[in-house]
Amino acid sequence: MSKLLIVGTVAFDEIETPFGKTDKILGGAGTFIGLSASQFEVSSAIVSVVGEDLPQKYLDLLKSKNIDISGIEIVKGGKTFYWKGRYHNDLNSRDTLVTELNTLANFNPIVPENFKNAEVVMLGNLHPSIQMGVINQMTKRPKLIILDTMNFWMDNALEELLAVIKKVDVITINDEEARQLTNEYSLVKAAKEIHKMGPKYVVIKKGEHGALLFNNDNVFFAPALPLEEVFDPTGAGDTFAGGFAGYLAATEDTSFDNLKKAVIHGSNLASFCVERFGTERMESLKRSEVSKRLHQFKTLTQFEIELQ
Amino acid sequence: MSKLLIVGTVAFDEIETPFGKTDKILGGAGTFIGLSASQFEVSSAIVSVVGEDLPQKYLDLLKSKNIDISGIEIVKGGKTFYWKGRYHNDLNSRDTLVTELNTLANFNPIVPENFKNAEVVMLGNLHPSIQMGVINQMTKRPKLIILDTMNFWMDNALEELLAVIKKVDVITINDEEARQLTNEYSLVKAAKEIHKMGPKYVVIKKGEHGALLFNNDNVFFAPALPLEEVFDPTGAGDTFAGGFAGYLAATEDTSFDNLKKAVIHGSNLASFCVERFGTERMESLKRSEVSKRLHQFKTLTQFEIELQ
Repeated sequence: MSKLLIVGTVAFDEIETPFGKTDKILGGAGTFIGLSASQFEVSSAIVSVVGEDLPQKYLDLLKSKNIDISGIEIVKGGKTFYWKGRYHNDLNSRDTLVTELNTLANFNPIVPENFKNAEVVMLGNLHPSIQMGVINQMTKRPKLIILDTMNFWMDNALEELLAVIKKVDVITINDEEARQLTNEYSLVKAAKEIHKMGPKYVVIKKGEHGALLFNNDNVFFAPALPLEEVFDPTGAGDTFAGGFAGYLAATEDTSFDNLKKAVIHGSNLASFCVERFGTERMESLKRSEVSKRLHQFKTLTQFEIELQ
Repeated sequence: MSKLLIVGTVAFDEIETPFGKTDKILGGAGTFIGLSASQFEVSSAIVSVVGEDLPQKYLDLLKSKNIDISGIEIVKGGKTFYWKGRYHNDLNSRDTLVTELNTLANFNPIVPENFKNAEVVMLGNLHPSIQMGVINQMTKRPKLIILDTMNFWMDNALEELLAVIKKVDVITINDEEARQLTNEYSLVKAAKEIHKMGPKYVVIKKGEHGALLFNNDNVFFAPALPLEEVFDPTGAGDTFAGGFAGYLAATEDTSFDNLKKAVIHGSNLASFCVERFGTERMESLKRSEVSKRLHQFKTLTQFEIELQ
């Protein structure tokens, strides 16, 4: 089985949406990526750091999904990264109420020995120096390195971020961030500029408006599934990335055609994530449900047209 | 050949975008719908009103596209509807600087005798009473009545608008307007509410984010083509509607599968409209160009995926 190495936070989230609020629950990019990727036949591991305050049941949940957690460092007496946020009525914007880095402030990622030759590496949103630290520990150049990042690092660690971008095969980034990174409003032009920075593939996430995949002159668009209810968007982007990376690790095919499929799988899984608070929906998600919704995706976008 | 009856403004537009500005040029919903529909094998007519100040060359242009203009009333001594607007840098929002209704203020639409049995009627954005006036002049129930409208009429003539909505088969409306009309944020829920108001088909236009077609539980999504340059969005929605209506009139097939194709044709044509100021691009558009871009649409969204 192919190996997928994930680096990302395992964290406490506390979430308020127009539909309700949670206590401190399990969250974090590494968590969502891992849960999503576990829908595929891959051997995955998460590299992260937590404090002793993280309930054992959360680690057990990850283990139960066949995720190797030996790379999750538990800092004695330490506290786990904690984020509290409130979504606005449209669910497209949110205010961060609390961010406590805690153990994440001094995170020194250690890649487990048996994952140093992983075929696919998924670098979840973290300080680019941490992401680079993981790349540097690989003993073999992975078939595919996928980078997720955000505007915070563009504002605060641009040089380190550009160094990581140069080293990766795929970047996933949202539309506003793509514009910020390139000073180009047109996403087509922004993707071209990002290609020049290194990545062969550029995935631009547009939230409820879907995702675009660019590979030079090839473009593919995957819609988000129109949903009756979006309950909590937290983790949707990471779930997308996890499905994307998990599918690519399981298939080990880095052609444009296969990346198209990976984008569809990512969008499909993200459509479940937002149906419940936090990780709830992803914890219990069955493959039969995933498969059924893939049919809906196909119906949603496929058409026959007479081309001359 | 099938007949397509179009009602909509033929007007002066004066446009400012970040890329430049125009003098008073040809615009109006009826104009854009007519030019777009002329890409198909249909016999179309525009019902509208203008003043004597409208240059004859504009009417000649419409005639040269095989559009019957006998239903365009020219008011002696009257002035043509005039709109002046300025787009913001993102091209997604704009300020209206001037609106002069002029002859439109007392518009009493007269459907040409030989179009009272048109197979398809496209009601462009106008006061709902005018739209209703056109429906009432039809001697035979058209196969398909398509309604375009906007938030202005929801604010100012809701009762009349609801009466028209009840009579049509298809409504095209943008996402914010669908939300306003139904008080539902979810577009899936909004479409369900609009179905209840009458239309069997609901098309929700999301501008650069594409368009959704709803028919009860059937949903189809057509993306907008990602463009390097959007020069002037004026008329894009009407061009979409014109392509949609023109294709349906040419094919006379009102199945969901054919409406999917109509949405693709509409999106395809709209992608040309925005490449130049006003009607410039649509005036010279060749069928070979249209066909070539349809291929791009297919490539953009089609994928093969293993479904279990």
